[in-house]
Amino acid sequence: MKQRLQQLTEWMEKESVDVTFFNSTENVFYLTDFHTDPHERLMGLFVFQEAEPLFIVPGMEAGQVKDAGWPYEVLGYADHEDPWEMVRAALLKRSLKSVERFAFEQDVLTFNRSQALLSLFPSATSQSVEEAINLMRVVKDENEINIMRRAAEMADYGVKVGVEALREGVTEMEVLAKIEYELKKKGIREMSFSTMVLFGEKSGQPHGNPGDRTLQKGDFVLFDLGVVLEGYTSDITRTFVYGTVSEQQREIYETVLEAQLASLNISKPGTRIGDLDQIARDVIEKAGFGQLFPHRIGHGLGINVHEFPSMSHLNEDELKVGMTYTLEPGIYDPSVGGVRIEDDVLITENGFETLTKFPKDLQIID
Amino acid sequence: MKQRLQQLTEWMEKESVDVTFFNSTENVFYLTDFHTDPHERLMGLFVFQEAEPLFIVPGMEAGQVKDAGWPYEVLGYADHEDPWEMVRAALLKRSLKSVERFAFEQDVLTFNRSQALLSLFPSATSQSVEEAINLMRVVKDENEINIMRRAAEMADYGVKVGVEALREGVTEMEVLAKIEYELKKKGIREMSFSTMVLFGEKSGQPHGNPGDRTLQKGDFVLFDLGVVLEGYTSDITRTFVYGTVSEQQREIYETVLEAQLASLNISKPGTRIGDLDQIARDVIEKAGFGQLFPHRIGHGLGINVHEFPSMSHLNEDELKVGMTYTLEPGIYDPSVGGVRIEDDVLITENGFETLTKFPKDLQIID
Repeated sequence: MKQRLQQLTEWMEKESVDVTFFNSTENVFYLTDFHTDPHERLMGLFVFQEAEPLFIVPGMEAGQVKDAGWPYEVLGYADHEDPWEMVRAALLKRSLKSVERFAFEQDVLTFNRSQALLSLFPSATSQSVEEAINLMRVVKDENEINIMRRAAEMADYGVKVGVEALREGVTEMEVLAKIEYELKKKGIREMSFSTMVLFGEKSGQPHGNPGDRTLQKGDFVLFDLGVVLEGYTSDITRTFVYGTVSEQQREIYETVLEAQLASLNISKPGTRIGDLDQIARDVIEKAGFGQLFPHRIGHGLGINVHEFPSMSHLNEDELKVGMTYTLEPGIYDPSVGGVRIEDDVLITENGFETLTKFPKDLQIID
Repeated sequence: MKQRLQQLTEWMEKESVDVTFFNSTENVFYLTDFHTDPHERLMGLFVFQEAEPLFIVPGMEAGQVKDAGWPYEVLGYADHEDPWEMVRAALLKRSLKSVERFAFEQDVLTFNRSQALLSLFPSATSQSVEEAINLMRVVKDENEINIMRRAAEMADYGVKVGVEALREGVTEMEVLAKIEYELKKKGIREMSFSTMVLFGEKSGQPHGNPGDRTLQKGDFVLFDLGVVLEGYTSDITRTFVYGTVSEQQREIYETVLEAQLASLNISKPGTRIGDLDQIARDVIEKAGFGQLFPHRIGHGLGINVHEFPSMSHLNEDELKVGMTYTLEPGIYDPSVGGVRIEDDVLITENGFETLTKFPKDLQIID
């Protein structure tokens, strides 16, 4: 059996879960290697403790599932067929022993679909499968890491294109358009989130919207962007100064950089995750900017651009080899503007590697 | 009360529904004029038959809700607060008479959230609110039509840019990148779906993926694209021939065009929606290509790029003034390639208007 399915069934055995059901694009991709967004149509994977998995997809996708190397049963349904009735029939053929306990994505499955799913196993109890699958996904294998390394290279390239597009009077949207244009020419079909290019005081909004603000001497320039590559994401933030730099800007920049490096430098197997946030927060508070760092230091990164774990100061879990996440402290002054510095980090046997590699020293762009 | 909320409460009164709850970005936008994607955080609108509406949003959005002109109560919650508990307290303060029946988005709300919602009204029965809100959204008002007209203009412009970027040897992705670049420079932040540029035999896949296929003389060139503008979408498809055209290509093209015009020409108030599909299907079948038109003729268009109604031959409903939808017949020959021609259509008192206006006669690009 495929290794990830094997790992899942071991968890099911331990928890006495007879059946699990997945229908999010991300978890189905993780378990089947098949990536598609079925939009409003149902796509679902059933995994059994004591039988082979069953994968149901819209009919026009069934061939591609086989092409993607899926070795188990696939059911394809036409638009006029009821996929739940097909599942019911397929389950009967498997003559499973009575299902007493099943698990599904309770944070994802819609109410209507949960009613259909619950009716398949009317005498069973149900539970969430999210924690189990998150704990599997949090540790990346070599293949995943190689893809994420290339996704991060593309993010670095996006920043490089952005820097080269800066000139006095250019708008945020013009620079944003140029970045995505050059990435698309390299074959990137999808950004991992809405690209952010913010100038001057607009960089002082943690969730600002790029628009027609033009670049002026003395502005901060903040880029936050990432790509989707072969189903995996990257996410980088770099901040520059255009033309001239004030003492206040320099102080903010150096504080954020010190905070980010502090957090990076304790990134190794065994570190309490909450400490990554705390050590950066301490640096920023000591410099007197504590009120201006309103968000957690980062988030898990992988198939989703925001995934488990949440890197807040409250997280008591420990870093493990193969974990990938962002570190992105920031200081946002509504009048001066904001600085955020973000890397994608991989935990290795000996410590860490940053997958994003664009230089971080303060650069004044001319 | 805002007119749309008034219309909703009239439906509630008729159906004896005491409370409705909305949490999709689209329906919340439609009813509140506030547009945001709250990602994993809860955003929800409660509408009551006998009290003012209640809107709960992540704390950092609460100010923007007021800025968007929302005149009723807004609750903002911090990340460490339980939004459902805040709602529970707010409901108690309203001293509603006992809730016997409530309605929510059963195709959208997740299982976990549905459990929290159901627990607010433990003795009530629930039903879907989707049909009611879809029937409201299906008829666009003047303001919506004006925005959609401008969104369609941008889609026309995207096709124009694409045509101008064609030259022998260019790749699909290069042309796609150029289209999105020029649209972003005009301020478009989001395409309404993943832009499609397909050359030659690749245009023969209704859901093909743009890649590094290069343009050669004699290729079909298919563009399918749209933009999001002020919360509304557009969606256009045009197909061209590059360099030279074969008799077979011409026959396919003229058949699709004839089918699309047949469908357009019966677009007026009172027409059975299913007939739009049927009349186009009849044209294509008569020309001998019936097997090569595998999808419905179109879909409703508005806040969502695919919304109610589904324009299939089975749809018994009638067209009404103010409806907006796509008409997009296609013929897909896996060896020759495919042709699809798609307009965004508005039903007017006297018939129809196409919002997309790019010419449709067969054009051979040199």
